[in-house]
Amino acid sequence: MQVGFIGLGQMGSGIATNILQAGNAVTVYNRTRSKAEPLAARGAKIASSVADACRGEAVFTMLANDDAVERVVFGEGGVLGSLSTGATHVSSSTISVALSKRLAAAHRDAGQHFVAAPVFGRPDIAAAGKLFVIAAGTPEALRIVSPLLEAFAQKIFAVGDAQETANLIKLSGNFLIAVVIESLGEAMALVAKAGVDRQAYVDILTSTLFGAPVYKTYGALIAGGVFEPAGFAAPLGLKDMRLTLAAAEDLRVPLPLASLLRDRFLTLLAQGGDKLDWSAIGTLAAKDAGEGT
Amino acid sequence: MQVGFIGLGQMGSGIATNILQAGNAVTVYNRTRSKAEPLAARGAKIASSVADACRGEAVFTMLANDDAVERVVFGEGGVLGSLSTGATHVSSSTISVALSKRLAAAHRDAGQHFVAAPVFGRPDIAAAGKLFVIAAGTPEALRIVSPLLEAFAQKIFAVGDAQETANLIKLSGNFLIAVVIESLGEAMALVAKAGVDRQAYVDILTSTLFGAPVYKTYGALIAGGVFEPAGFAAPLGLKDMRLTLAAAEDLRVPLPLASLLRDRFLTLLAQGGDKLDWSAIGTLAAKDAGEGT
Repeated sequence: MQVGFIGLGQMGSGIATNILQAGNAVTVYNRTRSKAEPLAARGAKIASSVADACRGEAVFTMLANDDAVERVVFGEGGVLGSLSTGATHVSSSTISVALSKRLAAAHRDAGQHFVAAPVFGRPDIAAAGKLFVIAAGTPEALRIVSPLLEAFAQKIFAVGDAQETANLIKLSGNFLIAVVIESLGEAMALVAKAGVDRQAYVDILTSTLFGAPVYKTYGALIAGGVFEPAGFAAPLGLKDMRLTLAAAEDLRVPLPLASLLRDRFLTLLAQGGDKLDWSAIGTLAAKDAGEGT
Repeated sequence: MQVGFIGLGQMGSGIATNILQAGNAVTVYNRTRSKAEPLAARGAKIASSVADACRGEAVFTMLANDDAVERVVFGEGGVLGSLSTGATHVSSSTISVALSKRLAAAHRDAGQHFVAAPVFGRPDIAAAGKLFVIAAGTPEALRIVSPLLEAFAQKIFAVGDAQETANLIKLSGNFLIAVVIESLGEAMALVAKAGVDRQAYVDILTSTLFGAPVYKTYGALIAGGVFEPAGFAAPLGLKDMRLTLAAAEDLRVPLPLASLLRDRFLTLLAQGGDKLDWSAIGTLAAKDAGEGT
């Protein structure tokens, strides 16, 4: 297939590479052109504008936040005005439920397909082509893009034709991960102050009731205390708590844990954590308990 | 071995049965004698007093809370006064760090061994002999009782000779489980109000990043909405949050999630949830969001 790919951050680069290696003709666009060069070396074409990346049957966007997606889609020379009738925009960014609804309506009005396909997994998983994809769109649109999604997915969960449902599930998943990080941070602060080795504690947890990748990954990160380079930066964590709370506000669902986590991210950023991995909120409980003072 | 077993609730009955079936001579004691009869039918001797259960090389206690353990150990005709010199008290109850320290000192002064061996797992896992055991005590005491622990353990984690460490790790684990329940309750309230099926959502979570027993077990309980009979009753959940916070207070470790969870359990009990499984706190977010009103 002729596919465009916009947004070559850590996640986007891995995804685009897998789509390319599956045999598709991929045209990539990134605001900072140098990030496109590794893909060009593997055979991708570099677009000089967003519009140039929208000439094929489908275009992916994998961008940092709502603002970036709005600019790239609704701006002059953007995806909405450049994509052919019947072509599909696949949005893999973690964006708000409200923006997903707005994108769905705009593409429908323009005679284009819109698929929301946010992913679970960190950059190493994206590079390995083993992401979990939560996909929503019309059955026809999902059928068209499924070979592309399969190129980078460990598993695809189709969750219906209301696109924003995929985004809500993605946000709720990031909320649940953030809860795991904070709860590990608190539990580890407690046992460590009683003299228990942090990694030994994580090993007990993950070989008993908590044997999920998320406990292993984040337990090791917190125990190791190394948060740079960020696989998923703290400001993105704050963004996702904000988007979760915004969706919850629209639906009128109070979420006390999400509110608490929003404050944790604010604390981390207030203390200079902008460049750190979001798992660094897992150090705040130990700091509150006097560690390092 | 000649072993006593005090406390034949849902957990204790399963553990005692496995110790018996491993070929040990077991004398059981329970305040309500009828609960001892199924074990007697399998060959256990029924003790008519706590003291009568303390004539062997080791005695287990598996009781609901600190008060019950204090009564049984320090009361007249209690474990402390009845156990022989050199014999071992194995405490599998989920008790406070402070009481565990007090028990360790008292048994040491009496020339007896004390092993803290709290467990992870619900009653069905206890019956199957597949509990996770967190054990702490002197190497000699651990060596003596390890064949007994192996009779009901899937795995034993020896965490050193400070007995209270095992109790702290157990409490921290129950805190982490309660966090999972609350976070699932909030996430499920959010997506369900947007029309997503709760069990389908749990299936997505548990086949992606959250593939741990605790998410499967509690996700299914919350999605199913059936909280009776209780595998682990809500008042015990409140107790464990209180004990976690007490240990954290002694160590001066603020735990914002544990404080929030304590309030959730209070809400559940205030609304009449005393007989419910502790996972019923996972319904509070949906109630807050207007479900059922």
